[in-house]
Amino acid sequence: MSSTPQIITFNQMRESLYAAVVSDALDAAGYRSQSCAAPLTNLTGGASVLVGRAKTTLWEDLDHEDPEPYKLELKAVDSCQADDIFIAAAHGSNRSGVWGELLTTASRNGGCVGAIVDGFVRDTAPMSQMKFPVFARGTNVYDSLHRQRVTAIDIPVEIGGVTFNPGDLIIADADGIVVVPQKVEEEVIRAAWEKVHAENITRDAIRDGMSATDAYNKYGIL
Amino acid sequence: MSSTPQIITFNQMRESLYAAVVSDALDAAGYRSQSCAAPLTNLTGGASVLVGRAKTTLWEDLDHEDPEPYKLELKAVDSCQADDIFIAAAHGSNRSGVWGELLTTASRNGGCVGAIVDGFVRDTAPMSQMKFPVFARGTNVYDSLHRQRVTAIDIPVEIGGVTFNPGDLIIADADGIVVVPQKVEEEVIRAAWEKVHAENITRDAIRDGMSATDAYNKYGIL
Amino acid sequence: MSSTPQIITFNQMRESLYAAVVSDALDAAGYRSQSCAAPLTNLTGGASVLVGRAKTTLWEDLDHEDPEPYKLELKAVDSCQADDIFIAAAHGSNRSGVWGELLTTASRNGGCVGAIVDGFVRDTAPMSQMKFPVFARGTNVYDSLHRQRVTAIDIPVEIGGVTFNPGDLIIADADGIVVVPQKVEEEVIRAAWEKVHAENITRDAIRDGMSATDAYNKYGIL
Amino acid sequence: MSSTPQIITFNQMRESLYAAVVSDALDAAGYRSQSCAAPLTNLTGGASVLVGRAKTTLWEDLDHEDPEPYKLELKAVDSCQADDIFIAAAHGSNRSGVWGELLTTASRNGGCVGAIVDGFVRDTAPMSQMKFPVFARGTNVYDSLHRQRVTAIDIPVEIGGVTFNPGDLIIADADGIVVVPQKVEEEVIRAAWEKVHAENITRDAIRDGMSATDAYNKYGIL
Amino acid sequence: MSSTPQIITFNQMRESLYAAVVSDALDAAGYRSQSCAAPLTNLTGGASVLVGRAKTTLWEDLDHEDPEPYKLELKAVDSCQADDIFIAAAHGSNRSGVWGELLTTASRNGGCVGAIVDGFVRDTAPMSQMKFPVFARGTNVYDSLHRQRVTAIDIPVEIGGVTFNPGDLIIADADGIVVVPQKVEEEVIRAAWEKVHAENITRDAIRDGMSATDAYNKYGIL
Amino acid sequence: MSSTPQIITFNQMRESLYAAVVSDALDAAGYRSQSCAAPLTNLTGGASVLVGRAKTTLWEDLDHEDPEPYKLELKAVDSCQADDIFIAAAHGSNRSGVWGELLTTASRNGGCVGAIVDGFVRDTAPMSQMKFPVFARGTNVYDSLHRQRVTAIDIPVEIGGVTFNPGDLIIADADGIVVVPQKVEEEVIRAAWEKVHAENITRDAIRDGMSATDAYNKYGIL
Repeated sequence: MSSTPQIITFNQMRESLYAAVVSDALDAAGYRSQSCAAPLTNLTGGASVLVGRAKTTLWEDLDHEDPEPYKLELKAVDSCQADDIFIAAAHGSNRSGVWGELLTTASRNGGCVGAIVDGFVRDTAPMSQMKFPVFARGTNVYDSLHRQRVTAIDIPVEIGGVTFNPGDLIIADADGIVVVPQKVEEEVIRAAWEKVHAENITRDAIRDGMSATDAYNKYGIL
Repeated sequence: MSSTPQIITFNQMRESLYAAVVSDALDAAGYRSQSCAAPLTNLTGGASVLVGRAKTTLWEDLDHEDPEPYKLELKAVDSCQADDIFIAAAHGSNRSGVWGELLTTASRNGGCVGAIVDGFVRDTAPMSQMKFPVFARGTNVYDSLHRQRVTAIDIPVEIGGVTFNPGDLIIADADGIVVVPQKVEEEVIRAAWEKVHAENITRDAIRDGMSATDAYNKYGIL
Repeated sequence: MSSTPQIITFNQMRESLYAAVVSDALDAAGYRSQSCAAPLTNLTGGASVLVGRAKTTLWEDLDHEDPEPYKLELKAVDSCQADDIFIAAAHGSNRSGVWGELLTTASRNGGCVGAIVDGFVRDTAPMSQMKFPVFARGTNVYDSLHRQRVTAIDIPVEIGGVTFNPGDLIIADADGIVVVPQKVEEEVIRAAWEKVHAENITRDAIRDGMSATDAYNKYGIL
Repeated sequence: MSSTPQIITFNQMRESLYAAVVSDALDAAGYRSQSCAAPLTNLTGGASVLVGRAKTTLWEDLDHEDPEPYKLELKAVDSCQADDIFIAAAHGSNRSGVWGELLTTASRNGGCVGAIVDGFVRDTAPMSQMKFPVFARGTNVYDSLHRQRVTAIDIPVEIGGVTFNPGDLIIADADGIVVVPQKVEEEVIRAAWEKVHAENITRDAIRDGMSATDAYNKYGIL
Repeated sequence: MSSTPQIITFNQMRESLYAAVVSDALDAAGYRSQSCAAPLTNLTGGASVLVGRAKTTLWEDLDHEDPEPYKLELKAVDSCQADDIFIAAAHGSNRSGVWGELLTTASRNGGCVGAIVDGFVRDTAPMSQMKFPVFARGTNVYDSLHRQRVTAIDIPVEIGGVTFNPGDLIIADADGIVVVPQKVEEEVIRAAWEKVHAENITRDAIRDGMSATDAYNKYGIL
Repeated sequence: MSSTPQIITFNQMRESLYAAVVSDALDAAGYRSQSCAAPLTNLTGGASVLVGRAKTTLWEDLDHEDPEPYKLELKAVDSCQADDIFIAAAHGSNRSGVWGELLTTASRNGGCVGAIVDGFVRDTAPMSQMKFPVFARGTNVYDSLHRQRVTAIDIPVEIGGVTFNPGDLIIADADGIVVVPQKVEEEVIRAAWEKVHAENITRDAIRDGMSATDAYNKYGIL
């Protein structure tokens, strides 16, 4: 880890990076509002750090018979590709569980690595067994049929004050969900990588007895 | 008011009825969940009791360039008819002000008598001057353009736990918003009319010094 | 107003005192938590300052046929005496409107001067016409029948973190609701009376151009 | 699991059913509002699916010395029978922890299999060790003495918009809490049982690579 | 109003502009997040549109004896100048009423025209009589002494997701509170002025019977 | 455990006491409001019961360049002593993560045993591995730099309605956080110790089949 690699792969990010350090690198680059304010937590476990690219869907609530239920939802799930994260912008609606076991199983066929739902989900027990990370507001047993539906896919969506563009790099873990805008992606990931290294040195110094004040004065990190 | 008329017109309802007494009549008919639980208040004044039929629209939030902005919204506004109440089911979204002065002006051309918005509105000052009742969650200065849009019109929608079917009779005042299902409409309005009469007698007796206990024992009303 | 009277009557309090100055006097006496934290507002207007003694009732929600509906509620209303304020501790429940026009009419027969409801009420329009102050969380059109009921009267109750003992002096206005414990009532009301006088002098000095800093240094009041 | 048994026992339900599939069967039977909207979660672990019949209690808050503390609460706990689930309708009050270790121990003597509390509980650590499932809003260290009490037992109660009648069948797991009305109990449990079987076939097909779209077109399940 | 003046004065803004039209002009300039998301309302009436420049203060909660109470608060109030709006960034704290009658009186000596408080205030009745607009979350009777205090003045502060820099132009009315960044101030105010003119034409056309669809197609405004 | 020791050490408290029983002892001593009402949970695991003395810090939000970032925060961390619990009174602000891995490492050098944060934290994964208990509202990935800062240390602070004085004894576990005022500390801890013993006898009796009613009548404990 002493020198930064030329190209940092998804698997290298999963091993070394985490949401807080990427957020610090975004801060330093002047992007201070890239973390979702919505109360989403990882309900199913799985990877300690979820890294991938946004596959976006927009949802709406309804209260009438939907003539074509599930249509766009199925299209989105079946078009997932390697390292995609399924993004469901459902505006926090608690009307049904919009993601579940069968969608997980199908999306993984294409290479989907997790789901971020600004809403509620169901089938959390089998999804936990599948070690598929699902960030959501909570659980809801109701089927989405005639309660919620996808109205658009592969467009920019907003969750918790942050825009997720299709293909944006996402880093999510127990501390939060961070979106990296594409035009600073390379610079930010490189800076985060280097900050991880510097933090390790600082932590070791403190663990060896250095005070926080001295460590901050010496390394400039907290 | 001593005998109930054969047909009770909208204007008669506006003079004699109010939301609480219609709710009591619905209770007595076994419909105990016909009042919106959403925190909507009349932000613009106007009629003390808003009575009319539901003209429904369904809204969604978005965060991308809408290729056909305002399309269904304009269609809904321009198709309003006499005694319609514009119903905007926007799921409580605080993303923009979805109703305002120009929409009010246009909807009134067709005979629209008020708006009920499960969301936020703007231009409250001119709408107050127009004495057009607008029930909503609050105000938001943002234009709805690329923030919210209508996705369906003239379908059943849900606000605060109650379904508004197109054409349903609505009674709304400072106490709340009540929806009368069409199959019991005639029976419920008649019963409410009669209860208003009985309440007047009870109130007079109490005002003349009768205790609440005695009045309830004698008239069975509280 | 230059010298404090020996005995300060309810009507004198209504003319000269207000909630904030009584709260300041309670602060000075070491009682720093005597204002309700619950979001209650005066929904019906009436007196600009409501002053009286607590007539307490405790409420519960229910969802079954109540064999003796309204029983204790009627007893409480019919036993109200001069300068009583009806206190309904309903734990903020939005299940029905627990206070309304007929109860207002009946309670006024005994001398009740207002109501403070930690819950919701209905019939706000006629109660406004009666100029009867009702502080509550909001409005709800549902009748309380089989939804909420009184389970005890004339006992200590808690609203928004403050205990209301039967007979406690209450001062409520647009700024909030303050409860004066009986053992410091005389001392606190006297101190509030004197602070009103001192504030008038300070305000006049500032209005004449004195800076806030100079006024505070000179009079010690803000 | 290939053919549905004549009678489905509680233990068979615990092995094969879960809340979401029972909710889907209720949906299909026209019961679309049988899941609690209150934010209750299983705080103590234990059975992955809690199945039993409702033993109901109604609670109220108080702020005065209770002359007969615990009276009805003890009666309810001591009258629990095999496969009962203790239901505490406390209206979400965060005034104390109304359920705890000693009540758990006592209720299990009669055969109680879990507790659903629309409120807060304490002693979560020992209840976790006892593997006794407790669904609640959260934890509160305060004793219920003089803070909350039971006012009625074995009557219908409401939690999160759903009525729990005494004896109603309850299915609760990580996804939510579902109440099955008695008049459709047999039909709904049978339909849920059959849907579990069909879902297994669909899941296997998707896991073998079938797209979600094809699977839905073929099996009609999502 | 037919041609835009070279320089638009504060008084001209107060007569012709309002928050929604300024927000639309900011939208068009690419500033789509300049309206406070905090739930602040005008509690005291006064000017229908509040226009001025931000005089900022930062507040914190405390729970200990403050050795220098009111110090920075008095300094800020006494340094207010013509057309200033007092901005109190108190993070929504409901710990006391941080603004009141004496501060209003003193700040007006320097020319302050209103207050925007992300927190709570008291003395609403006399401030209403003074026609001094105060936007806040609500009312709280407690004195700020030893409960809240100013920790910095004349620095950038954040309310409801928007940064208020010292001197920023503020437009606030019943629809919301809009902050105009200084580098686009001239352009945005000019564009708003012109939009008001165009809206008047559109409104008149609709009022004369043109449908909303036709008006939007012709004038491009909604 | 049959007889109470003369002096009860921190380690003995950690082995035998828990928050609920200490709360009951405080209740009996007339201290009925010593538990935090703020929704803080243990996000990192570690000790099942956290026992120590309050090391207090007061935080404020900011939105400007802080000329001396981290200054008081570092001072507080570096002055932690054996059995201290770091208390961060940040008023529930969700503006950043105010506590994290490096602060944990440094505070442990002095003997700090846990942190209670009325706000949000980050680096939950490494803090969990360190088995360092952190009670907080949730997680937030943002660095506190220029977002939040410490403004005072070693003063009384308030969290969730309870005052934490420097040096106060704290007992925190999954049920809640309890503060023991110093003047009743010895008496309360002794009473809690004895109640644990009595509860064990009661629990054993119930486990052996005694009804809850009989056990309560015999032992007076529930």
